[in-house]
Amino acid sequence: MIGFVIISHSKNLADEVIKLCNEMKNYDFPIVNGSGKDKNILGSDPEVIKKAIELAYLEDGVLILGDIGSSISNAKKAVKLLDNFYNKDKIEIADAPLVEGAIVAMAINSGKATIEDIVLELKELKSFNKVD
Amino acid sequence: MIGFVIISHSKNLADEVIKLCNEMKNYDFPIVNGSGKDKNILGSDPEVIKKAIELAYLEDGVLILGDIGSSISNAKKAVKLLDNFYNKDKIEIADAPLVEGAIVAMAINSGKATIEDIVLELKELKSFNKVD
Repeated sequence: MIGFVIISHSKNLADEVIKLCNEMKNYDFPIVNGSGKDKNILGSDPEVIKKAIELAYLEDGVLILGDIGSSISNAKKAVKLLDNFYNKDKIEIADAPLVEGAIVAMAINSGKATIEDIVLELKELKSFNKVD
Repeated sequence: MIGFVIISHSKNLADEVIKLCNEMKNYDFPIVNGSGKDKNILGSDPEVIKKAIELAYLEDGVLILGDIGSSISNAKKAVKLLDNFYNKDKIEIADAPLVEGAIVAMAINSGKATIEDIVLELKELKSFNKVD
C-alpha cells in the first residue's frame, strides 16, 4: 500500500480531490494535501510539500500528483529536501492528470500493486480517449 | 469567446475548478457547474448537464469538460437532449483532463481562438509530459 500527496494550485481544489478519493477508496491509506503557500490557498511551496510527503509516507512508497507546472517543480524540490530516513526510490511524481490520475491510482492501491505498477498504469492512462 | 461546462463526479470539486478558473481567466465568459444528480453531490445527470449547457451557451460554442466515464457519457446524452436553438456543431466534449484541460482552455479563450482551435490545443496537451 502506498500513500498519496495531492498538490493543486488551489488548496481547496486539492481538498475536494481528497474527499472524492476518500469516498471511492476501498482500503485505508493516507492522502495528504500538499498545496498552499504561507497563508495563501493559491500556489505551492517545497517545504509544505515536504511535510505532506512525510505524513503520507509508507514503506511501499508515496505517489505525488500535481496539476500545473509549479506544483510539479515544487514537488521535485520537496523530494530533494527529504532526509535519508525516506527511501527516495519509492517516491514518485506522477505524469498523470490530477483528478483522473488520483482516481485510477487509488482504485489499484490495494496492497498488491507496487508503486512501479501504479506509475505504469498511469502512463497508460495518457493514451486513453475519454470521448470516442 | 466560448462558454464552459465543468462536470465532476463531485459537485464540490467542480465548484473549486470553476473558482480556480475564475481566478485565472483574463476575459469574461460563463463557466457553469454541470455536476450533481437530484440532491446528491456525487454523480451526474443528463438533464442537469443540459441546463448547464444552456446557461453556458455562447454563439461561438460551449466546451464541456468532465472527469470520469459517467460524466462524459451523461454529457453526450445531454447534448442530444438540446433543442434546435442550440448549434450542436459548436458544442464539444473535451478529450482532456478536467483540471489541466480547463486551465489551458480558459487561458486561450480570448475571443480569437475558435472552439476548433481550443479542441486541437487540448489534443496536444495529451502528449505533454508533466514530469520530465
